[in-house]
Amino acid sequence: MTTTATKWVYRFSEGNAQMRDLLGGKGAGLCEMSRAGLPVPPGFVITTEACRAYSERGGQLPEGLWTSVQEHLGEVEAALGRSFGGDAKPLLISVRSGAKFSMPGMMDTVLNLGLNDETAAALAAETGSERFALDAYRRFIQLFGKVVLHIDGTKFEKLLEAAKETADVHSDAELAAADLRALVARYRDLVVAETGEPFPTDPWVQLERAVRAVFDSWNSRRAIDYRNYNKIPHDLGTAVNIVAMVFGNLGDDSGTGVLFTRNPSTGAREIFGEYLQNAQGEDVVAGTRTPQKIAQLGESMPEVYHQLEGLARQLETHYRDAQDIEFTVERGRLFILQTRSAKRTPAASVRVAVDLAREGMIDEVTALQRVSPDEVSALLLPAFDATARTDAIGAGRLLGRGLNASPGAATGRIIFDADRAAERAAAGEVVILARPETNPDDVHGILIAQGVLTSRGGMTSHAAVVTRGLGKACIVGMEALRIDLDSRTATIDGRTIAEGDEVSLDGTTGEVFLGRIQTVEPDLAANHELFALLGWADGVRTLGVRANADYPRDAAQAREYGAQGIGLCRTEHMFFETERLAHVHEMLVNAPEHARLQAAVEAASDGPAGELARAQEALQGSQAAHRYLAALAKLEDFQRQDFTGILDVMRGYPVVIRLLDMPLHEFLPSHDELLAEVAVLEATGAEPEKRRQQETMLSLVSVLREANPMLGHRGCRLGVTFPEIYEMQVRAIMTAAADLVKQGIDAQPEIMIPLVSHVNELRALKPRLEGVAARTLATAGVDVHYTIGTMIETPRAALTAGDVATEAQFFSFGSNDLTQMTFGYSRDDAEGKFLGEYTERKILPANPFQTMDVDGVGRLIRLATTEGRQARGDLTVGICGEHGGDPATIAFCQAAGLDYVSCSPFRIPVARLAAAQAVLGQRERDR
Amino acid sequence: MTTTATKWVYRFSEGNAQMRDLLGGKGAGLCEMSRAGLPVPPGFVITTEACRAYSERGGQLPEGLWTSVQEHLGEVEAALGRSFGGDAKPLLISVRSGAKFSMPGMMDTVLNLGLNDETAAALAAETGSERFALDAYRRFIQLFGKVVLHIDGTKFEKLLEAAKETADVHSDAELAAADLRALVARYRDLVVAETGEPFPTDPWVQLERAVRAVFDSWNSRRAIDYRNYNKIPHDLGTAVNIVAMVFGNLGDDSGTGVLFTRNPSTGAREIFGEYLQNAQGEDVVAGTRTPQKIAQLGESMPEVYHQLEGLARQLETHYRDAQDIEFTVERGRLFILQTRSAKRTPAASVRVAVDLAREGMIDEVTALQRVSPDEVSALLLPAFDATARTDAIGAGRLLGRGLNASPGAATGRIIFDADRAAERAAAGEVVILARPETNPDDVHGILIAQGVLTSRGGMTSHAAVVTRGLGKACIVGMEALRIDLDSRTATIDGRTIAEGDEVSLDGTTGEVFLGRIQTVEPDLAANHELFALLGWADGVRTLGVRANADYPRDAAQAREYGAQGIGLCRTEHMFFETERLAHVHEMLVNAPEHARLQAAVEAASDGPAGELARAQEALQGSQAAHRYLAALAKLEDFQRQDFTGILDVMRGYPVVIRLLDMPLHEFLPSHDELLAEVAVLEATGAEPEKRRQQETMLSLVSVLREANPMLGHRGCRLGVTFPEIYEMQVRAIMTAAADLVKQGIDAQPEIMIPLVSHVNELRALKPRLEGVAARTLATAGVDVHYTIGTMIETPRAALTAGDVATEAQFFSFGSNDLTQMTFGYSRDDAEGKFLGEYTERKILPANPFQTMDVDGVGRLIRLATTEGRQARGDLTVGICGEHGGDPATIAFCQAAGLDYVSCSPFRIPVARLAAAQAVLGQRERDR
Repeated sequence: MTTTATKWVYRFSEGNAQMRDLLGGKGAGLCEMSRAGLPVPPGFVITTEACRAYSERGGQLPEGLWTSVQEHLGEVEAALGRSFGGDAKPLLISVRSGAKFSMPGMMDTVLNLGLNDETAAALAAETGSERFALDAYRRFIQLFGKVVLHIDGTKFEKLLEAAKETADVHSDAELAAADLRALVARYRDLVVAETGEPFPTDPWVQLERAVRAVFDSWNSRRAIDYRNYNKIPHDLGTAVNIVAMVFGNLGDDSGTGVLFTRNPSTGAREIFGEYLQNAQGEDVVAGTRTPQKIAQLGESMPEVYHQLEGLARQLETHYRDAQDIEFTVERGRLFILQTRSAKRTPAASVRVAVDLAREGMIDEVTALQRVSPDEVSALLLPAFDATARTDAIGAGRLLGRGLNASPGAATGRIIFDADRAAERAAAGEVVILARPETNPDDVHGILIAQGVLTSRGGMTSHAAVVTRGLGKACIVGMEALRIDLDSRTATIDGRTIAEGDEVSLDGTTGEVFLGRIQTVEPDLAANHELFALLGWADGVRTLGVRANADYPRDAAQAREYGAQGIGLCRTEHMFFETERLAHVHEMLVNAPEHARLQAAVEAASDGPAGELARAQEALQGSQAAHRYLAALAKLEDFQRQDFTGILDVMRGYPVVIRLLDMPLHEFLPSHDELLAEVAVLEATGAEPEKRRQQETMLSLVSVLREANPMLGHRGCRLGVTFPEIYEMQVRAIMTAAADLVKQGIDAQPEIMIPLVSHVNELRALKPRLEGVAARTLATAGVDVHYTIGTMIETPRAALTAGDVATEAQFFSFGSNDLTQMTFGYSRDDAEGKFLGEYTERKILPANPFQTMDVDGVGRLIRLATTEGRQARGDLTVGICGEHGGDPATIAFCQAAGLDYVSCSPFRIPVARLAAAQAVLGQRERDR
Repeated sequence: MTTTATKWVYRFSEGNAQMRDLLGGKGAGLCEMSRAGLPVPPGFVITTEACRAYSERGGQLPEGLWTSVQEHLGEVEAALGRSFGGDAKPLLISVRSGAKFSMPGMMDTVLNLGLNDETAAALAAETGSERFALDAYRRFIQLFGKVVLHIDGTKFEKLLEAAKETADVHSDAELAAADLRALVARYRDLVVAETGEPFPTDPWVQLERAVRAVFDSWNSRRAIDYRNYNKIPHDLGTAVNIVAMVFGNLGDDSGTGVLFTRNPSTGAREIFGEYLQNAQGEDVVAGTRTPQKIAQLGESMPEVYHQLEGLARQLETHYRDAQDIEFTVERGRLFILQTRSAKRTPAASVRVAVDLAREGMIDEVTALQRVSPDEVSALLLPAFDATARTDAIGAGRLLGRGLNASPGAATGRIIFDADRAAERAAAGEVVILARPETNPDDVHGILIAQGVLTSRGGMTSHAAVVTRGLGKACIVGMEALRIDLDSRTATIDGRTIAEGDEVSLDGTTGEVFLGRIQTVEPDLAANHELFALLGWADGVRTLGVRANADYPRDAAQAREYGAQGIGLCRTEHMFFETERLAHVHEMLVNAPEHARLQAAVEAASDGPAGELARAQEALQGSQAAHRYLAALAKLEDFQRQDFTGILDVMRGYPVVIRLLDMPLHEFLPSHDELLAEVAVLEATGAEPEKRRQQETMLSLVSVLREANPMLGHRGCRLGVTFPEIYEMQVRAIMTAAADLVKQGIDAQPEIMIPLVSHVNELRALKPRLEGVAARTLATAGVDVHYTIGTMIETPRAALTAGDVATEAQFFSFGSNDLTQMTFGYSRDDAEGKFLGEYTERKILPANPFQTMDVDGVGRLIRLATTEGRQARGDLTVGICGEHGGDPATIAFCQAAGLDYVSCSPFRIPVARLAAAQAVLGQRERDR
């Protein structure tokens, strides 16, 4: 090995931002700033290669490294006119690790290195503050002791506490020079006691040991665990950054501050920041003194301020983004310590990106990549005013937390019953509906509530699913909440709330507050920058974006947000409304008898004419059959109105309507409640009439309920068994569409058959439904373009997509169910029982119900898309599970070649942006 | 088209068995017999090509056909010395359809064609029986009217009934010649009334119309539906067989009979059959006269008998199988009407195949193909004596039917409680356990019962699964059965049975009888032919055959039947035994608290030492943790005994032991029963102490129960959450194995982790379990070869098999769960609700829980096998679902390249044969 040829050390002027592999992220950043001519304190970087060489040699510094360090430190001394270990104007330095990928807190830093009794005295003399010098010395020993000598940090803390007690003071800052001198002595004694050796006073020894400590920290258990967890390779090594210390606390011509090149709250183009005279960065953090607005620096040191303004503009231009700049003024001399992309609010993020593009600093594509979909999402929701929330917590009004089932902020009067909630809302009050858990009977209450709170249920409970669809704030499973429906009160950890009390819910965090908190509603229409950005996104993206919407008002919202159609209109919600449930029950009770008689007719149709006539007579004479068909006719009226509304709003765009999917027993009362009621009625002999009634209902519910309803008699299995239900729905759809088309409105229904697992299910259903559609259109006397397709939500449908596509005109991946069946997870059970532990322990990389599992579920989606298209060239393929609004999933859908994604209306803007970013990501990978 | 070149008609001597495409199955068979020199009545075949030509020409007979028919009929006249339509010795013929594939009942036949007033008179004169001639004439008009003229058959029936009334007789046979003459007249009147034309009296017109009718019947709705259902192409067409009628009722030198070349019950090599003098085939069927044993023919007509014996031997040699021969003697002249492979009992099937091979008539490979796996299966079960069963039905002792959950016959005293069943069995009685449904508490009753009967539950109910595993007869879901546990009686459709009454169950058919029915137990060891056959099978097959067995006695049975190891030993059954359940409950109640404390210790192990110490102290001080570990220690003792037993029996063979798979709540009392009990106790205020107890149990059950337990917290998800359970099991397995190895016994445990859906689950569990195994072996001081593998039962495990195989040393497909998840079917729900309709309507080709779904589930199995082996070259791959004993699935497993199948002990002989047949099938396809 020709060590002389290896360059182990880079001065800042020799590196640049691209050299992260060799110099680490921090080092490359310092070099970049330095090369851009910024007044960075002088310093240099020991390469990651040196770290690797050190490891390979079993902890021996590579040959030539130390000579090079000495040379470069000489250059730093020269640049500042200071001397490392010198007895006048001593040079102090910081030694920091810095790997290619940020590993926050994993490896350590030593500050103020170079101090010993002599240099501390020299520093005291130079600064005129013995206290300052001794405090720096004390801190150095403490940090070095912990980081380099591996002494338990609490031991230093105990000595510090003892010193404060002796001096009878409360804060570190109150310790006098004498106290600190005594503390330094005790620290050095501690080092001897713990290590058996004196504290190293030679600055060069200090430096060598610090460099070794940084190298060694790469292989610490913490660092290895972190890299395993974050999948960072173990053979990268870390660089070491050695930088001269500068001090902002050397008098009134010194100071330290932070500056934002744009307003981080609003994104407005204005300098924004704070400055603290005669102070170090730590003092700002400690909060003992209140910083001034940055503008005041212009008054006290106009030249420095002017220079800073110029540098800020320079940095923003250099990095082409709003910057957050840390600076120190040491005796009138400005140093930039760090610059980085400024943290900002979602609103600011959008505004900065759009402004920068309009200013010509970046192009539109870059602007699109600057805003995260989550930021767009946050812009669409009401939120609590940050100050009001902080005040509420301060006032002890935080009642507790539940599961953050649907984001957004809501505040209003708590009501424990859906009917009363509806009454009070009708009377003009803003209400929060709180229930032990919700069920279909509560939907009218949910619809008018500002937010929903339940004490039971998980992320897929009824309340969670319904509110997410509606974009309403919802917190579920708040176990501490105990609702007493009789007394109309609730308790949370001993605090009692009465019905009508004001509460506030933060669905984004799961927090529940007592009392009203000011909310800030988004005014999307006024957000011109967002509209501009989404317009650019539409120009880039190739994936269509549709909405999951069941009601005309949701569809209208979706259009406003830019949806290009409805990807999923769930018809079961329509069955759930109170005025319809009686007809649904009537239908359910009589369906099996009708099916039995209908089957008899079909069986007889092959036999002698007499038998057929008898079977037909039985069917026509059956009360049950009449009731079944009458209930269906009633429901058809409702459904036609529903479909007319949604097709009208979506004129000119396709509307995918999913035929009934739910297990029938979900429309009936709770089995457990009925069981308990009947048991009591039977045991007590009370109310014989009611008992008979409830026994009948219980036996119906018992027949319909299932061991595993997720895998039960639902979806197209219902359609096959009770074909009249699907026929009724198709008649309602086609009648609605025909009426609209007659009025000159372009209605585009797409009929979706759910839960197919064998192409024969489609073969059994499609001709019947096409027959109904044809007859309906013939009666109406107009032509309506419609398609019949299927949801791909069982693994088998995906595995046999080539067959399924021979019958289906479109596919829509129901990724929720597909995920449940592919993993064998019941979401309701998994999220409460083991999924939390699985994601926490990284057994799963993410919750597969939030982010698509690419290896398993994704493989099925790719396979089905490819084989479906092979069988039918013009097959339209979309996704309509909750994943449809998840950016990572959207990127996957782009890669898998889907035609569109469909998500809840409130996710439409998010999806438009994510779809554009998916295209850009793909372009980058293809490059 | 050169019609002169097309040969539309084949005489029997021109065709052979290979010409099914052109001559249909029946025609080819007649030709084959004729060519073999057998005395077949003369006749000829009109080709399927003629049928196709007829259809193509829109119902016009192809040119040249009729001339050819006339020529060939002339040959028949000449051969018999009869004349078609002649006024002396008239020739009568039959006209039958006969397609390539048998379509029973789908197309029709006309007999006695050629009769009119003149020929009937000639026939009467010739036979000396006017009655015979008129009866034939009457039947001809009736059949021709229905088949050719499409007159509703019931109209002829009504006239026949009226004639019997007029004559005041009860059976057709009692009608005198005069009655028949009047009936013929009325039939002809009916034809005129229905068709507007007289009945055709010209035999040539009769023939032409009959041929057209057969051609037309190919495209009848019935025939088209049948072909659609059975996937037979529609363009094949049917042949028409025209054969001279021969009559066995022309005097005492005539007769008709059936002959088997081997005994169809036992397979013994002896002629077996029946003969009826002066009779037609119909008379045998009508049962009005009792046939003689065939041997008696030897006395009455020794020459004919001798000729028949020779022909029987000739036919058996020609077809190389036992034959079932129909023959007629017309005035001393023997005609063979049909020969076909003889139907036989399973026992006969095995004996005939082995005997034929030993006689050199067929080779061993052919013998293997002659016996169906179902026949072997039937040989292994006790069965009711056929006569006794018929008698019982005749005596009205058939009580009803349920679902045939587990085959076999059982007879004994009915007992309604597992404890009492155990008592009575201990007292030497043979019992049938009958319960509303069974649960784990009933297992001791099931184990000692001869058979099990339940009124509720489906094909995967507890009773069904346990009994199938045990090979015991079981009938479930017999809804008519209502058990009153208080009065110890049951009613079935109004009939009452008291506890202790004798009943008999036929698990093969689902029939339940009152009283005892003689059963026939299989004596497998004495069945030398079966052993010989299975030995030949072992020489051919390449798939291994293992057994699913949980108990040593089952394992021993499996060895006896030839199992080469255990493919699935389910450990949950071990948790279910009564004496263990208390410990299981103790474990369950305390597991969550232990897990919580354990997690705290793990979290603290990264933090300061003090925190860790505190967490460890809390864990050590916890009552719950102690109870949990103590319960596990108890269970470990039991498990070690279990594993010792099974590993000992299977010495020298691998034993796959599946770690705990079941959801925990299945070990607890029924939620619904507790709920009802607690509701009543709360409403009545009775028994406060019991109420508190039951409330506690209810809340535990409520926490553990799941919305979809199939997809819930079970399998390795339990192992990850409560690792001590799996560690306990592995310790028990390895201790047992080590003890055996020390005694010089070759124990080969294979540890199987169930329900994996992500390789990380194995990564989390495997090192822990390997650690336990290593420590256990180190303590024991011996080395035991063991492997750790996984069940592939979620679609995701199959889709990511390449990853999973990096950790798993073997795969075993859990095809039951894999089918449930791939289809999205809960078997319990599907079989009761829609699966019956699906298979009946052919939406699914078969019940996918019985026969592997090759397109969906099979695709996953192939993919996982291929990709698993790519990742690990020596991966062992088997299947252990219920499919493992299904012959079609075994053929699939052979094709997919699996290493072994595993099935219940009682299916082992079946699987050995099926595996051999799979190899032979593959060879044939490869040829």
